[in-house]
Amino acid sequence: MGTKKTGQTWAYSSPPSLLATASVVGPREGRGPLSGWFDVIKPDRLLGQKSWEMAEAKMVEEAVALALKKAGVGRDELDFLLAGDLLNQIIASSFAARTIDVPYFGLYGACSTIAEGLALASALVDGGFATNVAVVSSSHHDTAERQYRFPTEYGGQRPPTAQWTATAAGAVVVGPPGRGKLRATHATIGRVVDHGRKNPFDMGSAMAPAAADTITAHFRDTGRAPETYDLVVTGDLAAVGQPLAAELLEEHGLDLDGRFVDCGQMIYDETQDAHAGGSGCGCAASVFAGYLAKNLEQGKFRRILLVATGALHSPTTCQQGESIPCVAHAVAVERAD
Amino acid sequence: MGTKKTGQTWAYSSPPSLLATASVVGPREGRGPLSGWFDVIKPDRLLGQKSWEMAEAKMVEEAVALALKKAGVGRDELDFLLAGDLLNQIIASSFAARTIDVPYFGLYGACSTIAEGLALASALVDGGFATNVAVVSSSHHDTAERQYRFPTEYGGQRPPTAQWTATAAGAVVVGPPGRGKLRATHATIGRVVDHGRKNPFDMGSAMAPAAADTITAHFRDTGRAPETYDLVVTGDLAAVGQPLAAELLEEHGLDLDGRFVDCGQMIYDETQDAHAGGSGCGCAASVFAGYLAKNLEQGKFRRILLVATGALHSPTTCQQGESIPCVAHAVAVERAD
Repeated sequence: MGTKKTGQTWAYSSPPSLLATASVVGPREGRGPLSGWFDVIKPDRLLGQKSWEMAEAKMVEEAVALALKKAGVGRDELDFLLAGDLLNQIIASSFAARTIDVPYFGLYGACSTIAEGLALASALVDGGFATNVAVVSSSHHDTAERQYRFPTEYGGQRPPTAQWTATAAGAVVVGPPGRGKLRATHATIGRVVDHGRKNPFDMGSAMAPAAADTITAHFRDTGRAPETYDLVVTGDLAAVGQPLAAELLEEHGLDLDGRFVDCGQMIYDETQDAHAGGSGCGCAASVFAGYLAKNLEQGKFRRILLVATGALHSPTTCQQGESIPCVAHAVAVERAD
Repeated sequence: MGTKKTGQTWAYSSPPSLLATASVVGPREGRGPLSGWFDVIKPDRLLGQKSWEMAEAKMVEEAVALALKKAGVGRDELDFLLAGDLLNQIIASSFAARTIDVPYFGLYGACSTIAEGLALASALVDGGFATNVAVVSSSHHDTAERQYRFPTEYGGQRPPTAQWTATAAGAVVVGPPGRGKLRATHATIGRVVDHGRKNPFDMGSAMAPAAADTITAHFRDTGRAPETYDLVVTGDLAAVGQPLAAELLEEHGLDLDGRFVDCGQMIYDETQDAHAGGSGCGCAASVFAGYLAKNLEQGKFRRILLVATGALHSPTTCQQGESIPCVAHAVAVERAD
């Protein structure tokens, strides 16, 4: 095995291909600035289901089915599904896994899940444990509201630091090296970082130190220069957290000037009343599967570092006055040619 | 790479060692029939913490610290932590990961988590992605009651089919081949199976088909005979689910007569009012880390198949009238000599 681990970072020995990606989003996301980059825009948030939870599971199923179709990988050729979401007991993923019907690893990394899944799936392919692995991650505005802010009828006001949970799912099919336009070359696995922030309406500030920690580790472990990447893309620090992370990175001697963007700031525009920006496992997943992967495929970007960030609290721990532990995982994705 | 995947099963090319295991349990579990096999028995369920949730996180930390100490692996030699529990947003794991402070993969497989983690950790070691990986899984009776059956003050009666969530954590340190008394040779990754059961007070019946599915896949994929194993141990089907799984296995032509046991039936005795038996991520994890691993080490067993089973529903999906999707993952563990 040529796989090299340095610090927190894997350099895959034979970088696995990202055979295809697919994104399915809700109507609000479909009206946003990335509208043209998503594969499927749903006209409503129920998708014909009887609950928002089943609607989210449906989005997951559709994203995986579409990614498999684009990849030309049959259900019987799919070795594993790696999936996670924000919901209690990751029910969107588990209910979708029932339909997808392949061996299933459930993951929980909050909004970092898409990177956690890509890192693990790429390791499974690189290590010879799988040929094709589907990774998917989702969120749904209404399921998240029900879970985190019930009873929503109370109408608690959202402060400007709050983020808007995206209704979206993003799927990636990871497969053997040399088969697709994109490949995953490195993954940096994050430690849990907690600077004592307690406000669930300002998760960007809570997650910024975790993002900075993982990004710093990535550049330290790989010895790469910031210029290696066209973009370092966090997901989702949004308007409050992203400048904080940039500040922390500068303190660590890393200047990502002009290359440092955030999925939460990309998915909605200022007219969409999303406050600090987007969030949710589906935000980074759909922005990656939609905008980022397609721009890589089309040659606008050569190489990006996707740094998905997760706030690992629960409503219970917030009510108990605990702070918010956070994590960020990074995956380096580049054009294969 | 010699790793062979057949169907849903990995045969590790160089079976990773289970360097050490550790179990930390609550007072009720400490009064049960396995009392002498657990490393640490806590005199109360709060462990000096201010909430049950933080007590569960503390158990996770202690189990990992003890397993590392037994393994002679320093915190700085630990590459990754793989952890999961039953709680919303797996907070026991995430809060413990903050203290353990190594790169962290959060998992969710309900009570199947310990096997999901062992399978992945063994793959990471076998594939050269890690040298030492800690796997831990936990549950706590009171955190589970708060989450699944709030308000508990209502005093809803427990039917005889109900299981009792164990207050327990079990940790395993997986390391390089040839180093420990035990090793993991195979893992069979489960698909999500749902036979339409909807009663959260009878999870054994819901999980039995998933257990039977994975066990059948394991014997089909490996070509092994039931006699290969001293025990096939599910966790946790308990008194209602285990006979159902045995029946399903017989229908599939598999007679595990006398070898088929269940962690949920082992952790409490009949005087302990646990109804159908134990459950929770910590039940299978602590019974494995305590009783099973130690009996393997001491030579009473030569080889076992641990089949951890998870019910992937949430209180929300139950209230919405959905059925309970289930999964089971199996790991074959044997003496290394």
